Amino acid sequence: MADPAERIVENEDAYALNAATVDAILAAVEAGERLRLIETLDHLHPADIADLLEQIDVSQRERLIELWGKDLNPEVLSELEEGARDLVLATLTPDQLSSAVQELETDDVVYLVEDMDEPQQEILLDALDDADRVAVEQSLTYDEYSAGRMMQREMVTAPEHWTVGDIIDFMRASDDLPEQFYDIIIVDPALKPVGEVRLGKVMAHPRTVKLSTLMEDEFRTIPVNQSQEDVAYAFNQYHMIQAPVVDEHGRLVGTITIDDAMDVLEDEAEEDMRLLAGVGDEEISDSTWAIAKRRFPWLLVNLLTAVIASIVISLFADTLEAVVALAILMPIVASMGGNAATQTLTVAVRAIATRDLTASNMMRVVRRELVAGTLNGVAFAIIIAIIGMVWFGIPMLGVVLAIAMVGNLAVAGLAGILIPIALDKAGADPALASGTFVTTVTDVVGFMLFLGLASALLL
Amino acid sequence: MADPAERIVENEDAYALNAATVDAILAAVEAGERLRLIETLDHLHPADIADLLEQIDVSQRERLIELWGKDLNPEVLSELEEGARDLVLATLTPDQLSSAVQELETDDVVYLVEDMDEPQQEILLDALDDADRVAVEQSLTYDEYSAGRMMQREMVTAPEHWTVGDIIDFMRASDDLPEQFYDIIIVDPALKPVGEVRLGKVMAHPRTVKLSTLMEDEFRTIPVNQSQEDVAYAFNQYHMIQAPVVDEHGRLVGTITIDDAMDVLEDEAEEDMRLLAGVGDEEISDSTWAIAKRRFPWLLVNLLTAVIASIVISLFADTLEAVVALAILMPIVASMGGNAATQTLTVAVRAIATRDLTASNMMRVVRRELVAGTLNGVAFAIIIAIIGMVWFGIPMLGVVLAIAMVGNLAVAGLAGILIPIALDKAGADPALASGTFVTTVTDVVGFMLFLGLASALLL
Repeated sequence: MADPAERIVENEDAYALNAATVDAILAAVEAGERLRLIETLDHLHPADIADLLEQIDVSQRERLIELWGKDLNPEVLSELEEGARDLVLATLTPDQLSSAVQELETDDVVYLVEDMDEPQQEILLDALDDADRVAVEQSLTYDEYSAGRMMQREMVTAPEHWTVGDIIDFMRASDDLPEQFYDIIIVDPALKPVGEVRLGKVMAHPRTVKLSTLMEDEFRTIPVNQSQEDVAYAFNQYHMIQAPVVDEHGRLVGTITIDDAMDVLEDEAEEDMRLLAGVGDEEISDSTWAIAKRRFPWLLVNLLTAVIASIVISLFADTLEAVVALAILMPIVASMGGNAATQTLTVAVRAIATRDLTASNMMRVVRRELVAGTLNGVAFAIIIAIIGMVWFGIPMLGVVLAIAMVGNLAVAGLAGILIPIALDKAGADPALASGTFVTTVTDVVGFMLFLGLASALLL
Repeated sequence: MADPAERIVENEDAYALNAATVDAILAAVEAGERLRLIETLDHLHPADIADLLEQIDVSQRERLIELWGKDLNPEVLSELEEGARDLVLATLTPDQLSSAVQELETDDVVYLVEDMDEPQQEILLDALDDADRVAVEQSLTYDEYSAGRMMQREMVTAPEHWTVGDIIDFMRASDDLPEQFYDIIIVDPALKPVGEVRLGKVMAHPRTVKLSTLMEDEFRTIPVNQSQEDVAYAFNQYHMIQAPVVDEHGRLVGTITIDDAMDVLEDEAEEDMRLLAGVGDEEISDSTWAIAKRRFPWLLVNLLTAVIASIVISLFADTLEAVVALAILMPIVASMGGNAATQTLTVAVRAIATRDLTASNMMRVVRRELVAGTLNGVAFAIIIAIIGMVWFGIPMLGVVLAIAMVGNLAVAGLAGILIPIALDKAGADPALASGTFVTTVTDVVGFMLFLGLASALLL
């Protein structure tokens, strides 16, 4: 064990991979100095090594893995993001792979093998002992983004009649307690969980006290088929630390701890953010070609919607030829609508995700967005009317700008809230209503209102 | 204690406030039936009641609080979002307020009083007993978004020489153990933490084993002035459950548990998302007027940038008058640039937040964004050139569109990555590079390239 003083991390820089450490590691890889590499990596947390592997380029990564060889820390594999994980797995020798899976917990093994082809999966599963293999195969039968995949099978349970003394004796006698557990799960004879007791409570009471008298008031089980998003929501909403997972008959099949829920919570927030911007689940380690390909479809959708907006403009070609000021000013109306819609959209998507937008306040929120959009529409109508009049000296141009601005900002508020609500009701992810779709509405309405009014009032 | 079977929540609908429950509560409030209200609320988690209070309208909220009266569950107050919390606090009677703070943990009291005026704070602090008051006042001396504000003072510590038996005896004799704790913090005689022991480990070993032999290999302390964002990052990165907080001399002053870190982690991701969309920290319970005011400044910034783009267009008024097709097509080039830039921007902001974009891979990522932008630029140049030629029958128009598209998407990639990096280096939040700023660049460059090339090649 290291000297305690040395293990204390005192400043925030110590949390991140600092440049000096990265340079030292890359220098060791460059020079092929195996011992120096191993020694430097030894001081890093597996999560930091995983970050390093994601950040360096492909050839450096390959040489590092090769040089690290049999000393490779298997926990680094379960810390990698999916894309980088597959690249690293591909560079491991069969020996490295099988010794790695033997050292990992079963939920980490599941993460490693879930995206593999059958034959490659088979090779890895063969490296496991029978009990672990059964556990991994069982996990793989659950849906990828369900509680069944998140849960661990290692847990501590006790029958209802046990006392504090019984569970302490049981734990002292047991030689394979889980790495992480915070609760004792109390089960009935049919293996259905009936409550949980915090470890702190157990330790605070004499040996003769019955566990069933120490159970938490609040107790929630998680159905094995529940989506990981709902699991994360429940952990966050109800401040849960650990919860039993049950099958369709209510029998205990595993347990989920808060750190797993925390991972999912961050992933889900990030996914919403990416969907809103029209980016898929690309990673920092992806190649140039990969990210260009991933972004292409969204840009194509945007091209189609932009062409629709252009077709709307082309309907007013005569008006544009007559008054060139319209061509100069029309992007302002469209841009303001697009921004106002994106504001509403972002708030709506988050509110749906955190279940703050529900049947009981939907009408009020929709009305609020419409009115707030109109209010800002009026404010900007005044500003833009003055700009338009002063710039081009045409008073009626100011009037046209003002009416178009109020109309477009009101529509922006409505589109920004109604499109995600409609997607949610249709069972789709509301964040799919990315900027692209909602701003198509504001572009089309903006150009149509502005140029249509101009045709009617200016010509 | 309720019947165990009743306490098991089996389906996901049970997690959310369902419409029937909300209706029952509002009906009870409407009818002024106090007992029915209390009974219905009794079945709900404080977090769900807080959500309900945020979702219903102002008058319903006031009547509910009034009817609930002295039975109001103080924990609901600490579950409310800031805006709603202040509104609810304003409707409480002084008696309700002081009995509420007496029941809460000190970190929850800090959350309630931190935004109050001095005189109002004083009234609440007077309701506390001396020890709690000192603890709350001490917390308030730390920065609002620091570890010092996140931490709780309630924790279990042990000197280095204690055994498993010593700590169990100590805990059994203690009558005010913290609600939440997962580790025993081992401290030296100067009160500096030297390690931590998981409760599960303590329970798994005989009474004679020394705690110092059971300490975790990995052990991190958190400086009391560290930003909450860094604290949340460390918990997530290193899978921490609980960590000691130390002052500048390395002495133990409190502890942070993972559930507090989880709250912050979600808040920070949400903040990035809102900043990107140009929305402040508005809440679902805010009034129409409040959200219109909060969004106004960002829309004003957008108006200024849109006017800049219009000024660029006005430089080419003659060209637009000569070829009206340019006015019809120019929004396409600008829109594609804006979308491509938003994609890059979103990825960059997240990568900086999760520390995946660092000095060691910055050059590679910038180069990648530039090349990926150019690749998609070429792909869309071909598509848009064909559209332009077929639609308007002017081959050179296709060439102009194509060159402008490649140029603008390359610039979009660069702006999307360089602007957030520059903001981060300047010490600002990279998410401040909201759509508005980055798309100004692509609008200006898009219009300039397209109309400039058209002037040179088409006239």
